[in-house]
Amino acid sequence: MTDVVPLIEALTAVFGTRAVLTAESDLEGFVEDWRGRYKGRAACVVLPSCTEHVAAIVRLCAAHGVPVLPQGGNTSLCGGAVPADIGIPPVIVSLSRMRQIRRIDAANGSMEVEAGCVLQTVQEAAAAQQRLYPVSLGAEGSCQIGGTLSTNAGGTSVLRYGNTRDNVLGLEVVLADGTVWNGLRVLRKDNTGLDLKHLFIGTEGTLGIITAATLKLHPLPTHHALAWFAPVDPAAALQVLGLFQAACGARLNAFEMINRRQLELVIEHVPERRNPLGELHPWHVLVELADTGGGDEMADLLQRTLEAATQAGLIVDAVVASNEAQRDALWTIRHSVSEANKKGGVGLTTDCAVPVSAVPAFIEQATRAVHALIDGLDILVVAHLGDGNAHFIPFFTFDAWHALANPGATATALRRVVNDIAHELHGTFSAEHGIGQTGLGEMAHYKSAAELGLMRAVKQALDPRGLFNPGRLLP
Amino acid sequence: MTDVVPLIEALTAVFGTRAVLTAESDLEGFVEDWRGRYKGRAACVVLPSCTEHVAAIVRLCAAHGVPVLPQGGNTSLCGGAVPADIGIPPVIVSLSRMRQIRRIDAANGSMEVEAGCVLQTVQEAAAAQQRLYPVSLGAEGSCQIGGTLSTNAGGTSVLRYGNTRDNVLGLEVVLADGTVWNGLRVLRKDNTGLDLKHLFIGTEGTLGIITAATLKLHPLPTHHALAWFAPVDPAAALQVLGLFQAACGARLNAFEMINRRQLELVIEHVPERRNPLGELHPWHVLVELADTGGGDEMADLLQRTLEAATQAGLIVDAVVASNEAQRDALWTIRHSVSEANKKGGVGLTTDCAVPVSAVPAFIEQATRAVHALIDGLDILVVAHLGDGNAHFIPFFTFDAWHALANPGATATALRRVVNDIAHELHGTFSAEHGIGQTGLGEMAHYKSAAELGLMRAVKQALDPRGLFNPGRLLP
Repeated sequence: MTDVVPLIEALTAVFGTRAVLTAESDLEGFVEDWRGRYKGRAACVVLPSCTEHVAAIVRLCAAHGVPVLPQGGNTSLCGGAVPADIGIPPVIVSLSRMRQIRRIDAANGSMEVEAGCVLQTVQEAAAAQQRLYPVSLGAEGSCQIGGTLSTNAGGTSVLRYGNTRDNVLGLEVVLADGTVWNGLRVLRKDNTGLDLKHLFIGTEGTLGIITAATLKLHPLPTHHALAWFAPVDPAAALQVLGLFQAACGARLNAFEMINRRQLELVIEHVPERRNPLGELHPWHVLVELADTGGGDEMADLLQRTLEAATQAGLIVDAVVASNEAQRDALWTIRHSVSEANKKGGVGLTTDCAVPVSAVPAFIEQATRAVHALIDGLDILVVAHLGDGNAHFIPFFTFDAWHALANPGATATALRRVVNDIAHELHGTFSAEHGIGQTGLGEMAHYKSAAELGLMRAVKQALDPRGLFNPGRLLP
Repeated sequence: MTDVVPLIEALTAVFGTRAVLTAESDLEGFVEDWRGRYKGRAACVVLPSCTEHVAAIVRLCAAHGVPVLPQGGNTSLCGGAVPADIGIPPVIVSLSRMRQIRRIDAANGSMEVEAGCVLQTVQEAAAAQQRLYPVSLGAEGSCQIGGTLSTNAGGTSVLRYGNTRDNVLGLEVVLADGTVWNGLRVLRKDNTGLDLKHLFIGTEGTLGIITAATLKLHPLPTHHALAWFAPVDPAAALQVLGLFQAACGARLNAFEMINRRQLELVIEHVPERRNPLGELHPWHVLVELADTGGGDEMADLLQRTLEAATQAGLIVDAVVASNEAQRDALWTIRHSVSEANKKGGVGLTTDCAVPVSAVPAFIEQATRAVHALIDGLDILVVAHLGDGNAHFIPFFTFDAWHALANPGATATALRRVVNDIAHELHGTFSAEHGIGQTGLGEMAHYKSAAELGLMRAVKQALDPRGLFNPGRLLP
């Protein structure tokens, strides 16, 4: 067993005791995830305040042969941000003290931020300059930019603005030998060889530690129009999506679907959440248009498109938000699903994406497959329908979960049948959450040898000693 | 010297003489670029008709130690598609016979095509399904998808839709050991580790041979509005860009600027091209709006924004296209610059991008720097202004060019001073054309050791024997 004491002494000598946490009580928030599902061990937690500190930490860890686990807001849904309880306990490098917004160039639509900036802080700083940083997700009040980059976070605005990957112009990364790569580009176009930033986006800290990024900003939409409606079924919801794409083009900002059981859970477990429609219909969609300039005609456009969909028999009921407070209230329902599900029981979150056209088949077949294992089990559906990304969640009450003989095996089996259906429909088992700890078995099961071989070759090239996040991402 | 005869015999035995070209006259179109600036030697040209053939060719070449150069439509502007006249003459693998459109899924917005498909064919096939493949550039009638992918081609629609990289969902690639990686994803979201397609996009065939791709399709805009105007100067053009972004949001489709000398050359050398305005103003901008749905109000929006810009003293003169024929005629002027410049003399095309806000400073400073070397030399400017990408082209008449004592050295010196200005403004020497042969010296000059080190590590990991395109991309 590697003796970590000399390393801790060396780190403390350089950074002081306030930046190197070792007491068990101090480590609690870093070694366990927010839902309390994954807990591991760490040699210590180090809190660097600048890029050069991160580089020095990496060099010291490399010299002592102790692995490094970079951590952001620790909001992973698949155990990606905390150590596992195996192998050498790593040094956790928390980026939370590196939270400077270094500069904003509104005319160029770019913003340089440190990895520890909270996503919501970045959104607000952009908005203050009439610009939009579009990545938006439930954890935005606590997740950090570095985490969203290393997991290529998705969220509710992918339909219009793409994933996190699509909203990054450049990165600053500490490499395995302690070198700092300054790739903080500010350009829309740069074709000078391999686009290195894509090595680090979505690879969950296994190839380097992202310390800062140049983010891409968009014109801030000035007008919004939002409706909540009940489609007949998922296939009808897809047809409505097609109507909106044809009628509203690039104004279409979000198209989110949840099922009845999910809405019920939100209403039951989160204070002040109400059903926006008169009845609890089987399916619910939030649709939002947004435009820069333009204006009143957008509300008409929304209304007209909903009416056309209703006349075509695709929509059962609908309500249009008539002011910003109503709009916020509807979005808040959508953003309350994680909180509701944590309070209401144990949800086995899956994160499949399939071709957009295949979402109804996916939901139908996955439901059948889950019920073949556990008849009548509750299922929650939270779908970014416009992206083909459906969180299909077999859901247990706490009692039912604790009554299971082997909950781990049940969880694995349920996720596998859902992921199998996605795979058969040319889909993926991880659309936006990443691999973390949960997905390692699925990586081994679904990825081709060629694909794993390429990933291993790049890992070997960039981190030959396996310093960064060992045992993650690659099975 | 490697004896290529046994390899040619082996290739001919497998693929037949019609797919293996060796006669010097047959090689002409493959070993020289279309402007006649770069010419090299090849062992032979092989014309595979399927992915398995490409894999077999790669395995044979690897076994015989002969390098491989994949080639598309051979439209590179920097010698990227033809061999250099040094080292072992490579086997050129022309993808031109692999031109099947394998499938289109309009509902999912995706399209699987083989690498040899001509860009325009792909655009037309998408349009037939009411979908848009947005990548558009001067060579679209002859360049191939594989070439646009391996160079991450830009063009005139980057402002709205991004580069080629942003319009790809998946790839099929033949690797250096002859393995076929099937990464033909059809998904908007897939976070399962390293996004492997980015290794091959923009790396100019040095890491693998792209044989097919799944392209991302968008809703086909149904309404367009286009104007041609003369801004006071580039800084005023940028302010007009800001007005359009604020007023028209995502409807802004293109914002292209050329200078007077460039327009003159088009008018002089390309039949049926006329100045759209009454006078030859110093600067000319083509602005286009496009929308899906919407309608008449877009023409009003264009008109109103132009009027606001005129009243603000930013615009000297403007004309709005009143029908599709006029719209086509204005686009044709923009798309005629390459033809005009080839006929009119020798242009030293540069391909800089700087932050959008720095384009006026770049043009001004680069002009001074060029005139410090050759007083009064003509300069053409062709700028994708909304992307910060300005082709700044020192331009010689044929007579002046042939009178130069050392044209190669003059070209290198002129390009270097232009690229230096871009570099000082946090820009790049290659925004969209790539490295090819022209840019190798600039790569060595401008790239950091960390950056080149990362690229070399990945090259070594994926192509350890240097089989693919030796001597390209990486100095």
